[in-house]
Amino acid sequence: MSAIRYEAIKTCKQSGARLGRVHTPHGVIETPAFMPVGTLATVKAMSPDELKELDAHIILSNTYHLFLRPGHELIREAGGLHKFMSWDRPILTDSGGFQVFSLSEMRKISEEGVEFRSHLNGDKLFLSPETATDIQNALGSDIMMAFDECPPYPAEYDYVKQSTERTSRWAERCLQHHKRPEDQALFAIVQGGMYRDLREQSARELTSMDFPGYAIGGLSVGEPKHLMYEVLDYTVPHLPAGKPRYLMGVGSPDALVEGAIRGIDMFDCVLPTRIARNGTTMTSQGRLVVRNAKYAKDFGPLDPACSCYTCRTFSRAYIRHLFKCDEILGLRLTTWHNLHFLLELMRNVRQAIQEDRLLDFRDSFFQAYGLDKDDRGF
Amino acid sequence: MSAIRYEAIKTCKQSGARLGRVHTPHGVIETPAFMPVGTLATVKAMSPDELKELDAHIILSNTYHLFLRPGHELIREAGGLHKFMSWDRPILTDSGGFQVFSLSEMRKISEEGVEFRSHLNGDKLFLSPETATDIQNALGSDIMMAFDECPPYPAEYDYVKQSTERTSRWAERCLQHHKRPEDQALFAIVQGGMYRDLREQSARELTSMDFPGYAIGGLSVGEPKHLMYEVLDYTVPHLPAGKPRYLMGVGSPDALVEGAIRGIDMFDCVLPTRIARNGTTMTSQGRLVVRNAKYAKDFGPLDPACSCYTCRTFSRAYIRHLFKCDEILGLRLTTWHNLHFLLELMRNVRQAIQEDRLLDFRDSFFQAYGLDKDDRGF
Repeated sequence: MSAIRYEAIKTCKQSGARLGRVHTPHGVIETPAFMPVGTLATVKAMSPDELKELDAHIILSNTYHLFLRPGHELIREAGGLHKFMSWDRPILTDSGGFQVFSLSEMRKISEEGVEFRSHLNGDKLFLSPETATDIQNALGSDIMMAFDECPPYPAEYDYVKQSTERTSRWAERCLQHHKRPEDQALFAIVQGGMYRDLREQSARELTSMDFPGYAIGGLSVGEPKHLMYEVLDYTVPHLPAGKPRYLMGVGSPDALVEGAIRGIDMFDCVLPTRIARNGTTMTSQGRLVVRNAKYAKDFGPLDPACSCYTCRTFSRAYIRHLFKCDEILGLRLTTWHNLHFLLELMRNVRQAIQEDRLLDFRDSFFQAYGLDKDDRGF
Repeated sequence: MSAIRYEAIKTCKQSGARLGRVHTPHGVIETPAFMPVGTLATVKAMSPDELKELDAHIILSNTYHLFLRPGHELIREAGGLHKFMSWDRPILTDSGGFQVFSLSEMRKISEEGVEFRSHLNGDKLFLSPETATDIQNALGSDIMMAFDECPPYPAEYDYVKQSTERTSRWAERCLQHHKRPEDQALFAIVQGGMYRDLREQSARELTSMDFPGYAIGGLSVGEPKHLMYEVLDYTVPHLPAGKPRYLMGVGSPDALVEGAIRGIDMFDCVLPTRIARNGTTMTSQGRLVVRNAKYAKDFGPLDPACSCYTCRTFSRAYIRHLFKCDEILGLRLTTWHNLHFLLELMRNVRQAIQEDRLLDFRDSFFQAYGLDKDDRGF
């Protein structure tokens, strides 16, 4: 018996997108879902209560970062990550693979695993399929990710082929090493770069091992968007219909909608929270940089169409003032708003699937947001 | 008719402290009261809704800082400070006097006012009784402060005498210049340094002008605590019983209790919020520096006796982790806790006055907090 179960609700007749639910030990995730990122056991600037007010169903946290600080043994002693951070809804943890390849220094990759130096203090550390699995077992996340190698973009065919095959062997080792399959679901990560045959090979190898869910990794790493959509177009059909599909590291509004249309159920990205801390917000009319001088005397809300706490309560002029003065409330308010924006977008996407009109929704949403075909990668 | 009214409820038979209410255009302040400081139109790291959850009755904001950023004309255009920052309860604004003397550079004091350079960009600026009053009229605070000169500690008698007499003349000019006495109450500030005759002279001159309330300034500027209490002992009796008395810049738990015992109704201080941002908290057992290594695996709350959101929800180990990682939630949680601690202390003080046992309360509170006579300035 797997720790999670995917329940298919319906397929959008217009777009082919799917509406569903992922049942986990800590509750239900309605899909397609966006997962706010809580890198270090906190979604930056937000409290867990506020995330509930925003109705986030699940958050993501990072194995690599928690391994470094405060250490997974401490979190195990605390009773697991849910208890440590006071979040009783589902948590997904990544495997650390992506961070090892993007953040750390002096990586040495072998079949055994990856030796690297901490980006914080240069300490020599080692992650492998077994250690990444141990760490996630200590954290007690509802959904764990297999330890993978994420090739850069662009990358040569031969390198990606070797790396993809190693990712399959590593996935097998994670599965073997996993100690808590009854209450933690381990997802595999399909790699293969921008090569169709390698994506298909990866999907084939991994689905043969019967994981409770599958992610698509190695996208949103610098490639043009049309290429990402192309990869989704030929990869998703190779994933089993009865299990959740997770597109890693994607959180721009257009890619969330396009991903849902291509049958993706789950997304995560630091984008909404990261740009919020620089004073950039997502609104129904497109991006708005609230720090800009033109909002100095703008006493209207960030987004007149928005119903979030920030927009109900504060003006652009006030939020701009807070940013100009480096006041913490400023980035709290923009973070709140941006998360609301994406979570509300996903609620609208689910509603549109329910009503068989996701393509119509996409067109009107993109038009208001100011995205034309070029921006969207076509 | 004054904008505010002081309602005396009762005097503590044991201590002489008084319980009362200050009625303002934006609601009632139960006294003795602690006022959280919102320097730049935000109590650092807190939202206005959270301040209401903490049941803060009034907050303080700073004329000097708002004059520099975003400028009082912008706040006037926004509809006043309450509307600008979305706080519909009472606001007190200081006059800028203290900041001009403590923060700015190259002050030139004349009878007319003070020429100084901005601590932000060196711009040459000028504040006088008239401009400080204009600014506060633009802000629309419920309680405004007269523009005063705050002498340093220690200071020579002759200097303090001149300065105190000028503060009286400036107070008169503020009163004359004040445009909104019907909905903004202007308080005068008693100065006089550590000299009894000058304090008495200042109180006499200012009370003769019949302000709706009186502050005691020039304390908590580096003098030993016993000296501060001595000044209160001989100054408070010269203030009218029917009007509120505000001790400026005081917020240590012991001084709040000692001040209340000496007949003070209102206090403000950045202390609880400032130390919170460094990871220092106030607990019923005394100060606790949650950053300390010894709390790394302490899964209990900051203060087991505390009922605040932070203590109900999070552990010392988690909060320490947040501080070690410079996560914003960390200082949000300690700020929340410290403000709760002082607001709860004042609720307990009011209850003890009601029950004629404030001296008993002081003794047991100080004992638990770890304050002996020496710490308290005796």
